[in-house]
Amino acid sequence: MSDIGEDDRLRTNTDEAGDDIYSEDGSIRADFLAMVGAAIADRDVLFLRSHVARLHESELGDLLEAILPEQRQALVRLLGKDFDLTALTEVDEAIRLEIVDQMPNEQIAAAIGDLDSDDAVYILEDLDHEDREEILAQLPFTERVRLRRALDYPEQSAGRRMQTEFVAVPPFWTVGQTIDYMRDEEDLPESFTQIFVIDPTFKLLGVIDLDRILRTKRQIKIETIMRETNHPIPADMDQEEAAQIFEQYDLLSAAVVDENGRLVGVLTIDDVVDVIQEEAEEDIMRLSGVGDEELSDSVTDTSRSRVPWLLVNLFTAFISASVISLFEATIEQVVALAILMPIVAGMGGNAGSQTMTVTVRALATRNLDIHNAWRVARREAGVGLINGIVIGCLVGIVAGLWFHNVHIGGLIATAMLINMFAAAMAGIMIPLVLDRAGADPAVSSAVFVTAVTDTTGFFSFLGLATLWLLN
Amino acid sequence: MSDIGEDDRLRTNTDEAGDDIYSEDGSIRADFLAMVGAAIADRDVLFLRSHVARLHESELGDLLEAILPEQRQALVRLLGKDFDLTALTEVDEAIRLEIVDQMPNEQIAAAIGDLDSDDAVYILEDLDHEDREEILAQLPFTERVRLRRALDYPEQSAGRRMQTEFVAVPPFWTVGQTIDYMRDEEDLPESFTQIFVIDPTFKLLGVIDLDRILRTKRQIKIETIMRETNHPIPADMDQEEAAQIFEQYDLLSAAVVDENGRLVGVLTIDDVVDVIQEEAEEDIMRLSGVGDEELSDSVTDTSRSRVPWLLVNLFTAFISASVISLFEATIEQVVALAILMPIVAGMGGNAGSQTMTVTVRALATRNLDIHNAWRVARREAGVGLINGIVIGCLVGIVAGLWFHNVHIGGLIATAMLINMFAAAMAGIMIPLVLDRAGADPAVSSAVFVTAVTDTTGFFSFLGLATLWLLN
Repeated sequence: MSDIGEDDRLRTNTDEAGDDIYSEDGSIRADFLAMVGAAIADRDVLFLRSHVARLHESELGDLLEAILPEQRQALVRLLGKDFDLTALTEVDEAIRLEIVDQMPNEQIAAAIGDLDSDDAVYILEDLDHEDREEILAQLPFTERVRLRRALDYPEQSAGRRMQTEFVAVPPFWTVGQTIDYMRDEEDLPESFTQIFVIDPTFKLLGVIDLDRILRTKRQIKIETIMRETNHPIPADMDQEEAAQIFEQYDLLSAAVVDENGRLVGVLTIDDVVDVIQEEAEEDIMRLSGVGDEELSDSVTDTSRSRVPWLLVNLFTAFISASVISLFEATIEQVVALAILMPIVAGMGGNAGSQTMTVTVRALATRNLDIHNAWRVARREAGVGLINGIVIGCLVGIVAGLWFHNVHIGGLIATAMLINMFAAAMAGIMIPLVLDRAGADPAVSSAVFVTAVTDTTGFFSFLGLATLWLLN
Repeated sequence: MSDIGEDDRLRTNTDEAGDDIYSEDGSIRADFLAMVGAAIADRDVLFLRSHVARLHESELGDLLEAILPEQRQALVRLLGKDFDLTALTEVDEAIRLEIVDQMPNEQIAAAIGDLDSDDAVYILEDLDHEDREEILAQLPFTERVRLRRALDYPEQSAGRRMQTEFVAVPPFWTVGQTIDYMRDEEDLPESFTQIFVIDPTFKLLGVIDLDRILRTKRQIKIETIMRETNHPIPADMDQEEAAQIFEQYDLLSAAVVDENGRLVGVLTIDDVVDVIQEEAEEDIMRLSGVGDEELSDSVTDTSRSRVPWLLVNLFTAFISASVISLFEATIEQVVALAILMPIVAGMGGNAGSQTMTVTVRALATRNLDIHNAWRVARREAGVGLINGIVIGCLVGIVAGLWFHNVHIGGLIATAMLINMFAAAMAGIMIPLVLDRAGADPAVSSAVFVTAVTDTTGFFSFLGLATLWLLN
């Protein structure tokens, strides 16, 4: 996915189709889509080569997502070896598999040789074992070994995301020798920002940023200007943890080392940005009970991924319904209670989800920990009380006027205050406890918080009504 | 915030306090906090200088967030000129202001001279006009001009986030001349990954990555190896838009130009990562009706920021309550309806928020646009129907058994199916329409979706009951 050296390819030779394939709102221009569609229908390989094959990988990815499935297949076939496989790292998993599945393994093998190793792994890791082996078998020896090593690391580990191409020199070289080596060596990575210093066994000794090399006189030894690599990433570290190290120390790239401290690859920030985005995405999705579905998933896949959360919620909904049923006799006498009770429960749910969202995010970004948990909990209690009083008074006045009954007004105001406070406490305590217990607070907090606010809402409102109105 | 050249400073001289100030769960180690607390109380400047002043800026930021407000003030005072102001870019705004407000302007001015310009702007932009001017007046001329220029750009623009230090050379220089210049020049930016090529009026002609320089023979002219800068960022472009360009083209840094195409600064990916994170954060918060509050905000500020959303929800809650009141007579006769109706409304709300979250995120990441909106809407309709049937049947069976009444079972199953379908349609259409209308779908979708699922839930369930059970 790293491609800083290539954007000179961008947006050239697209004069006819205009400079920019995007319209104002960020979607692909309709006329460009129409032209591509027509060219695919006409099998106009010349047009496709000059206007589509030359797009940036991310533009080609957007284009693939915007056209119809049958057009995708045809486009990839028509482009043949001009199809830039890197574009597949920019599309949804479902689309990637759909395209790769219909490509002959020989074509994939030929194309994958041109990719950076991290992009190649990204595409290979989703294939089934048989296809993957067949493709690997057709690659040159060193490349096959490199890719196999990366694929041997666990899924979602730094080893899977790293690039296995890097520049490494021994510590006793001079700056001059290093520059001469780079001028002569043909087989350098496409782009790089650091040079690693290693011993003969590939043990990582240090690192030098390129600007340091350029500022230093030729005769100076590498070992005198290298700096310690304070954040080498173990290859089997989870990518999310690696991303946190990048974020914390504002790294642009980091060495990836095996269990013996030997350099095996380099992780760059552009891959990490994708991880950071995915993680934030996951949290949003999980908070609403959506798994890691993608826009191109099928109806049945999507249904299946969303039903479990609905079922859990259904269970808690029946629990709160059973709370209401405790007060059947009360409702029979004062139907107004049935009309108002969803307000108490619903507002508690809203307040609870505000607090819960703040708590879950603060935990994810490590802004909330044992040192300030107590302080934040006190703050949320205060907010719950204040908002409970504000909303409670307002609801009480409106409900009292509506039903011409001051008792009902006082009743709902009190119940609302109780539920808003309970919501605040549930919103902070439930994610904290789940986090302490080792569970992901984003996945399960919402169910518990709603269960608390629904049952507290119904119980306090109907319970107080039974005591207050009927006795 | 860019600091790749400095991490050799990290974690040295902290032998006594241990290598790592973090415990397993990512919070700062309790014993380290205790040692720092004791040192502050004892005014042990020696300990603070050797153990705190040498922390990485982000570690110092985490430490500032973990200690008490009065300890913060004391720590900054005790460290004096050894306090690294960059740490302030890593803490909450409230804490930043609290610390800066109590520092003498002279101390800020002295410290700000050592910062990268982007960090300096980040701190200066939050100060009130008077303090800012007083600090700027104490800076050397060139630095003052640079910072003023950055501060003149609109808030949250690329111009505010850019670094005004960069390396630029004329096109007619050779690689050799360029390298010699970098070896001799003292006043280079602390770290950089690209060299810009400009004409005498500072007009941007091209860019060269450092690895390209290092691979090229000394006598080659700069203009022959520079590449076009396809993505120069206008200084007044919104930072979010700039971040999207970085993401799309996997850039590590980009030139920032003024309205005349003159180079004014450079935007680097580490600043952009922060923007990407903030934007994702904002979306999560907005979806739950929380503004851009921070963990260190006061109780009253937090209450005030959360009440508006609660009030809007309260309004819609009364609308759905008035729907219930239409069927007062029906509820009076069959109290079971009051017990079950929150299930219909609540499950619709859950299903609606699943669809809405997916839609809002897809809009934010530009995965959803006019080309696939219809396809995605059809998919959501399918998912709504399938899940409606699944959940409807289940609810129908449980409710039928509970109340020993097959009519109630059939009734709630039908109402549930209707509401789940309505939820799916509201979940996709409401964010799409808001987005088309130019509103931020993350802010307002939830209110409308809940309003739809509540009213549809109550109306279909109680309406069907009135037709079915009473006639």
